[in-house]
Amino acid sequence: MNRVKVDLEERSYPIMVGDGLLQQTGDLFNRLGFSRPPVVISNPRVLRLHGRPLLQSLERRFGPISVIRIRDGERFKNQVSLQHVYDELFRAGADRKSWLIAFGGGVVGDLAGFAAATFMRGIPYVNVPTTLLAQVDSSIGGKVGINVRQGKNLIGVFHQPSAVVTDTAVLSTLPSRELASGLFEVVKCAAIRSETLLRYLERRLPEIQSCQPHALEYVVLESCRIKAEVVSRDEREGKHRMILNYGHTVGHALEAATHYRKFTHGEAVAWGMLAALQFGNELGMLGSDQGDRLARLIRRVEELPALSGISFQALWRALSHDKKFGSARIRMILLPRLGSSRICDDIDRAQLKRFLKNFLKQHH
Amino acid sequence: MNRVKVDLEERSYPIMVGDGLLQQTGDLFNRLGFSRPPVVISNPRVLRLHGRPLLQSLERRFGPISVIRIRDGERFKNQVSLQHVYDELFRAGADRKSWLIAFGGGVVGDLAGFAAATFMRGIPYVNVPTTLLAQVDSSIGGKVGINVRQGKNLIGVFHQPSAVVTDTAVLSTLPSRELASGLFEVVKCAAIRSETLLRYLERRLPEIQSCQPHALEYVVLESCRIKAEVVSRDEREGKHRMILNYGHTVGHALEAATHYRKFTHGEAVAWGMLAALQFGNELGMLGSDQGDRLARLIRRVEELPALSGISFQALWRALSHDKKFGSARIRMILLPRLGSSRICDDIDRAQLKRFLKNFLKQHH
Repeated sequence: MNRVKVDLEERSYPIMVGDGLLQQTGDLFNRLGFSRPPVVISNPRVLRLHGRPLLQSLERRFGPISVIRIRDGERFKNQVSLQHVYDELFRAGADRKSWLIAFGGGVVGDLAGFAAATFMRGIPYVNVPTTLLAQVDSSIGGKVGINVRQGKNLIGVFHQPSAVVTDTAVLSTLPSRELASGLFEVVKCAAIRSETLLRYLERRLPEIQSCQPHALEYVVLESCRIKAEVVSRDEREGKHRMILNYGHTVGHALEAATHYRKFTHGEAVAWGMLAALQFGNELGMLGSDQGDRLARLIRRVEELPALSGISFQALWRALSHDKKFGSARIRMILLPRLGSSRICDDIDRAQLKRFLKNFLKQHH
Repeated sequence: MNRVKVDLEERSYPIMVGDGLLQQTGDLFNRLGFSRPPVVISNPRVLRLHGRPLLQSLERRFGPISVIRIRDGERFKNQVSLQHVYDELFRAGADRKSWLIAFGGGVVGDLAGFAAATFMRGIPYVNVPTTLLAQVDSSIGGKVGINVRQGKNLIGVFHQPSAVVTDTAVLSTLPSRELASGLFEVVKCAAIRSETLLRYLERRLPEIQSCQPHALEYVVLESCRIKAEVVSRDEREGKHRMILNYGHTVGHALEAATHYRKFTHGEAVAWGMLAALQFGNELGMLGSDQGDRLARLIRRVEELPALSGISFQALWRALSHDKKFGSARIRMILLPRLGSSRICDDIDRAQLKRFLKNFLKQHH
């Protein structure tokens, strides 16, 4: 088992990464100081595939465990599911001293984390992420919340977990497209922060894709290290943390313009990285040899759904109306070289517009 | 104008207390660093009585102001009103850089504060409290949230305001029963922390009750000082902050047992203080001369609704099922002497039960 620390003073917490950790969760959480039985929040699919080792381990240590089920899928990360979680928490007799386990992918983590943040002014929760995307990204950093009809993640808070327990063994049941989606975030981590991880991915991609324990553990651990380090420097996304948004300016716009149906999150980010690479090259930021190297790796992870059928107007509207940022400026993360990133605040709108129009046409 | 600081490191904020401050809000907030126009959250009654000076002052400084109205009354501090606030915020074009003004009593403050805490992972808000209860209690300390059918304030977070601007002039339009409700919290502050304030109340009660500016300003300011000092020592109610719950163990139970209809919050707390005085006396904590002195002051503030018609069973159930505390133990705040308080964790259930049964009978 490997440990990474997210260093946030009194809100610091460990990320534990290992093959087969689910069977040890009872002891792990007990050693972290939890003594009452937790309430587990999960979805039916995850419980069916991986519920037994987790629940057995917890029950051995804590006695009978309450489980709250929410429906699977991003569209259920909403107010109705949240209310359901509250109701079930009351029904289970939860109080200020209760604690929750978010056991699932990003939807479960975001929703359970938000429930924990707001139940009786905040109770602790821990993440036990079961998708690669959640393991390397959403389970770390305390961004929790729900979607509303006005957009994704618009209602939420920062509420750091008390621990993250990441069992890489569960990834073997992941559909390959979901594994790829997570791998694109791993590639992103490497691109912005670690040429070493990038080289490892280039060399060992087949082993990772076939879920060989050692290779999976390595890339998950390294990605967690990078995310933890960034979050430790900037808990509330003052500025530095934005580098994690590499590929996300265009990626988010692609997701929104296609109503979150055409691409997985990772695929949209992959397209976003390809666009950022090419745009950065146009700005003289990154040599095309290096750009090509990263693009080749992205292409090897998965054949991306084409950009055909996406209107430039819809894409541009989504990109420039990203309400969260409260400014007319467009921000992009660009790479001065592989393994290093820069936050670019004053992207020339006209230039980006021209570029994206071409980019869409190119990849039609 | 007087200033009190709530000292919470990077979450510190000023409380400004003065007669006629509403007219200066634009400048005050501007000097605190706000430059964009705020969104004001209020209710129709407060806007009708006091909206003009606030909005004029804000508009002079910031330009046109969006106002979101919520319905008046504790029963509207719920999920539906919250959703309404979110929707109106989106409609007003609010984003991560927006800020809110909670302009009203405790309901507006709790709801607007919770909306601010959860809108796009948290935006700033300031309190402009318009009831005495809100001025001396709920506007300070960052407890925000909503009621659910399982109970009051069960969903919420800690989200400190960026400032509190308290204009004591608005209190002159307050119904006298609401003024009394707030005065009981002032008496509570004095009882747990300041014999000086207690003596002032004893001497100047008629002037306070007739809203003479100088007297009102003094008691509001002193109460704010006490609350600010307690909150600064214990932001998240670890333990010390519990002394603010003097009179609240029995008070909350009385409110719950009568479905929040028979007593104002202050009246329930007043009964709670009377009970705590007598029980403390039974435990040998406070001499009856001192107890009588405080009881006399409480009686002078307002004639309390009698305890007739309240079943002991309902009261006891409410008291011992206060789910928030997660323990079978009953905690009461008791006074070793006037102006000083002690948190008593291991109240003898049987003794308290016997005592309360008698207390109810006595005040039938």
